[in-house]
Order: sequence, then C-alpha cells, then structure tokens
Amino acid sequence: MRSWFTAGGIPSNHCGRHRSLTRIIGVDDLSTIVREVGLTRLLDDLILRLREALFRHDSETVITHDRTGFDYLSPQPGLVEWMPAMDRTTNTATIKTVAYHPNNPTTIGLPTVLATTSLYDTTDGTLLSLSEATLLTALRTGAASAVATDILAVDDAADLALIGCGAQAVSQVHAISRIRDLRRVIAYDRDPTVAASFASRIAKLDLQIDIEVVGESGLGRLVAEADILCTCTTVEPDAGPVLPESEHRPWLHINAVGADFPGKTEIPLSYLQNGLVCPDVTSQCLVEGEAQQLDPMELGPDLAALTRNAGEYQRHRRLLTVFDSTGWALEDLVVAEMIRQHALRLGVGVDVDLQPGAGDPHDPYALLRPLVEPTQVSTAQGRS
Amino acid sequence: MRSWFTAGGIPSNHCGRHRSLTRIIGVDDLSTIVREVGLTRLLDDLILRLREALFRHDSETVITHDRTGFDYLSPQPGLVEWMPAMDRTTNTATIKTVAYHPNNPTTIGLPTVLATTSLYDTTDGTLLSLSEATLLTALRTGAASAVATDILAVDDAADLALIGCGAQAVSQVHAISRIRDLRRVIAYDRDPTVAASFASRIAKLDLQIDIEVVGESGLGRLVAEADILCTCTTVEPDAGPVLPESEHRPWLHINAVGADFPGKTEIPLSYLQNGLVCPDVTSQCLVEGEAQQLDPMELGPDLAALTRNAGEYQRHRRLLTVFDSTGWALEDLVVAEMIRQHALRLGVGVDVDLQPGAGDPHDPYALLRPLVEPTQVSTAQGRS
Repeated sequence: MRSWFTAGGIPSNHCGRHRSLTRIIGVDDLSTIVREVGLTRLLDDLILRLREALFRHDSETVITHDRTGFDYLSPQPGLVEWMPAMDRTTNTATIKTVAYHPNNPTTIGLPTVLATTSLYDTTDGTLLSLSEATLLTALRTGAASAVATDILAVDDAADLALIGCGAQAVSQVHAISRIRDLRRVIAYDRDPTVAASFASRIAKLDLQIDIEVVGESGLGRLVAEADILCTCTTVEPDAGPVLPESEHRPWLHINAVGADFPGKTEIPLSYLQNGLVCPDVTSQCLVEGEAQQLDPMELGPDLAALTRNAGEYQRHRRLLTVFDSTGWALEDLVVAEMIRQHALRLGVGVDVDLQPGAGDPHDPYALLRPLVEPTQVSTAQGRS
Repeated sequence: MRSWFTAGGIPSNHCGRHRSLTRIIGVDDLSTIVREVGLTRLLDDLILRLREALFRHDSETVITHDRTGFDYLSPQPGLVEWMPAMDRTTNTATIKTVAYHPNNPTTIGLPTVLATTSLYDTTDGTLLSLSEATLLTALRTGAASAVATDILAVDDAADLALIGCGAQAVSQVHAISRIRDLRRVIAYDRDPTVAASFASRIAKLDLQIDIEVVGESGLGRLVAEADILCTCTTVEPDAGPVLPESEHRPWLHINAVGADFPGKTEIPLSYLQNGLVCPDVTSQCLVEGEAQQLDPMELGPDLAALTRNAGEYQRHRRLLTVFDSTGWALEDLVVAEMIRQHALRLGVGVDVDLQPGAGDPHDPYALLRPLVEPTQVSTAQGRS
C-alpha cells in the first residue's frame, strides 16, 4: 500500500500523474502547531491577517454567503450549517461547516459544537486543506473583536467587563488583552458554576490580569466600571437583553458576541440608539444580530469599512460604540489559511490524495487504473 | 506522535476523551474498493440503494438545497459549487463540492472537474467521511439513468444510442447495461478523437455489447434505431439542441444528461412536448435542465415520484419518455454512504481526528491540553 504520508511537500509527478494533495489538520495537529508557535503569537498573527483582509475587502474581491443549513428535532435536536467565503485577492475559498447539537455532552460525550473548514484553491479547484475549526472559530471571533476594539475603544482602556463566562469569553479576553493593556476583568455569568471556573480558565493563559467575578447584584457596578464590555451569552431568543440599562462610562465600547439567531439579542435598544453600531456583516446582523433591533439606516460602518476608515472612526473612541459580531465567513477563511501555512511550514498534519490525476478526461473510471498495474506486476513476478 | 492509523474501528475512549474519527477515502482507496468489490457490483448496489432512497423520499424526509457557488474569470475561469442533502431516515447529510476549471488539463495537468463529498452524522454532527467524488458522481449519474430507464424503457430494449461520447457516456452505458440486455450501442460525438476512443473505453468494461460509432451523416439512423438514447454533450448554452428532430421508435426513452446550466439544452422542444418528461429535481431542472423549455405544468413526475409509482408509469414504456437529469444532491448522499460502508468493511482509507473530545465546554482551548501531558510524562521519565 502506498504511504499516506509525504514529508511536507507536494509531489508533482507521482506514478506519471500530477498529484495535488490535501493537508488534513486534526485536533492533535492544532495542539502541535500551538505548542510550536504559541497561542498568543498565533492570535497576534491572526489579528494582523484579519485586519489586512478587512482592509483590502470590497464587495468585488470578497464574496461570502450568509450561513444556511439543515435543522431537525430528531433523533436529537440539532443543525448543520455551512458558511462559504471566497477571496479573489488570495484565490482561495472556504466552506466552514458547523454542527450544533446541545445534547452531545450528555448523550455521547462530544462537544455541543463541532466544526471543520475546507480550504480551496480557486485557481484550479483543489482542496488545499481540511481542518478542525472549533478552536479556529474561537480564535477568529476573538480576533474580530480585537480589530473592532482597537479602533473604537479608548487607548488607555484597562477595565474589561464580561457578561457570559463560557467558551467565547476566554478568547475574547485573550484577544482584547493583545490590543489593550488590561488591568482587570470583571465577569458575570448567570450560571454560578461557569462563573466559578472562569478565573482558572483565564489563569492558564498567564495574562497577568486581575479577575473579579461578581454575582447578579454586582452587574450595575460591572457596567459602571467598564471601558470595554463583551456580551457572550447563550440567552434564548426573545429573552434578552442581558446587559442592564445602568450608568456606564461615556467611552464604553461593547463587543456583542452572543447573538447569532433570529430573536436573540443581548444589548438594550437604548445603547444601540445612543451608540455607533458596527455590524460584522450587515445583512446577517439584520437577521440574527443586535441590528435586528434597528433600522438599516441606523447602522454604522460594517467591520470592513470600519477597518478601511479606522482613522475617521477613532473619533468615536470617547463615545459609546457597539461591535455587532455574528461571525463572518471571511474570518474563517483568514484563520484557515493561517493554520494551513503553519501546518505546511512545520510539517504537521497528514496529506491525502483526494484529487485524481488528469488521466483520460473522457473516462470516469480512468482514475482507477494505476492500482491495477502493481497487481499485474506482482503476478508476473510470482510466475518468474 | 500519535498514529493517524486505526485498524478499522472507532476507539470510543482515547486518552479519556470520546473520539469520533473521520474516514478519508482518497483516489487510491476508491481503486482498492473497486478492486475488492468490482465496479459492476458497486454499480448494481448503487442502483438498488438509489431506488430505495427514492422510494422512501418525500419532502419531509429528504431535504436538498439546489446547487449554488462562487464563479470567477481570473486567474483562470472556473467555479466552486456545493450541493447539500439531508436524509432524515438515515440521519445523514452530505455536502458535495464540485470545482470546474476547464483550463486545468492544459495549465496544470489536473482534471477539469474536481469533487469531494463530506458525509455527516446528523445525530451528533460528526463528519463521518470525506471522499473523492468525481468517480462517485459518474456512478450516481449512471445509476439515476438506470433507475429511470428501468421504469420507462421497453423490457426488450436492445439498442442504446449515445450523442456525446465523453466521460458521462461511459457510466451511462455501464449503468443501463445492468438493467437491460443491450445488444448494440450506436454512438456519435462531434469531436472525432473522442468518438474514436469510445469503443476502447467501453471495451475495458467487458460488457459484450457491439459498439458502432457513426459520423454526423449517421445521426438520423442513430435516432431511428434506438430503443434508449442518452444525450451527454458539453453543448454551449443556447447552442442546442444536439438531438436531430428525425424519425424515432414510438417507445424511445431518452436520458438527457448534459444540461446543467441556464440556457444549456440538448433535446428539441417537440420531443419534450410529445413525451413524458421526468425531471430529477423539478426546481433545478426548470433553471438548468431540459425543463427550461417547458411550463411547469407540462412536466411529468420527478424521479422520486416516478420510482414510488413505478407500476403506474410503466404504461409509458410504449411511448416517448424523457428523463431530465441535472444531478441531485440526494444521489450524492446515497453513493457517499455506500462507499463509506465499503471502506469501513474493507479497512480502506485513513481515520483522522477532526472532532475534539467533550473536554471543558467552557474553554475553547481545552482541546489543546492532551498533547501537553505526554511531554510532561516524557520529561519525568528523562529524570528518573
């Protein structure tokens, strides 16, 4: 049997056929890449790459489709969605598929969310890589908040508040700590066990930031003392907002990360009406983000326009601003390209042959031929 | 480094985490499966499975999205499309991605069409398999014609005519030969070199059928002497039809396989108006199939309704019938499931870990932990 492994390269002439291999980047490969590169350096690299991609973005160069998918109630409630993106400047496209099955942890011991990203070369259509994408999603969601926050938060922002201390909160803190010198995180979660474990989860990142966890009675102070505030809750549709309408610093910047479903919102309408609201993808935010609560005319620039015109929008640093983050397929494309480059450089992952050679374009069975030959050779040898 | 290979099973408890692995089925794996099972037995299996899936199909159990995608003109003209399907009876979903880059053979030595299919378990969202799909597409397109032809062609159909002798023609002949006792294939291609190689491509299948290749002057006779006729050309949009309006047997059954793009049609309007036209997917055929030429009210049953009511529609065997085949995502799902089952049974392909363990659902970095532990252990051993 021919080996599946190739030593970090793409053999251009294999058995007389051009072979273009696909790099599979699994869970343990991500661990290896993180160990070699460092999680913080990866995040810094991603923030930079995302900013560059947003800067060169326009509706001609980057095409994304809003996420769509299948949903069902049996045998377990769940959904499978796909988020496609194409970047004409890098000649790449991605399709991230995200599966959401809330009963997984209790029924089968798998996470609620499973995701993978396929990265294509649009010069010839080859599948360049397939990678695990729940880690990548957390990183890119953090990086998107970092890009928006870096433009819209005051320079000396030091107090970060969190409402919702689940998985997204970890990478939000991590990413925002890379663009502002945070002194303190004040955090709240309606689930006391999630709140209780928050400090230890953050401690592993060794960020040198004080963590203060407050109960419901501390919510007013949490809002009042924040320079930057992230909402990343799993609030049910029509059960929001999760952020109380209490006094806040005039320069508060909010990253609203949780809303990703029709009816689901975290931020009170008054905040949105009084602040500059920047959606990541306007069309998607109007359906499933905080922007559901507004008229399209009330929205500020989207994330790409914000990044391209960062100098202009920095005027808003002393005012209330909201980044409406629903998750954009372009972010998935940027992080998938980054991880593939690290995997190739480090020789991490496994190459598989999913692309047939040119063969005979008029014979669909031509790709089957090469394996017949070795058998014939071996038979001949047996006779000699 | 942990081995990527697992001996044909899914370890349920790996390093304390549930691991659900993804089987990658590459080009050479398909060759191995075909060598072990036999191409003809695979095709027979697929025809049976497709018929069963069509039989149990209704709009509640099977959900498909019409294909959509990205297209572009630079650096090379091309497109990447995705075709999603979900079957609630098997709790599976597939996304097939198809890339079309007509310059590939001359610029880079790759085929014009590249395709892969991802198969998901909709009970928990795991990615069950990723397989090469150009071979699978040829097989399922042939199988779909076989299912329609078996219902609509006369029992003693012996003469099969082909217009277009490219890749699709090979699997059309192969599949139809499995449901009717063919005596002769009469074939035409406007490209003399493609026509010239046709007989040798079919000969490799050892079907015991006479092959007669005719030039343009023989087209009238080709139509006149056919019991079954397949059009599988690459005619340009608005350049059709490719089938002449000449005399034909009253019971002629046509499989119109080529049309897959707005404006692209192969069959003269008069044939469609005089015959029973069965689309594979009505909505898609109205946009890119022969059905573009008709009003929706003029269409017969779709492939699933035809299969469910086969007894009723067999009355049309003595009359003109047309199967309008644009390619249906359900067919891709059925063939992907079949190939994965053979791969698991035969221990073919490679398992990769694209699904993280349950870990800590509140820490996106939790999936990174296990690889840290072996390093610590190894350091401790070094000290002892």
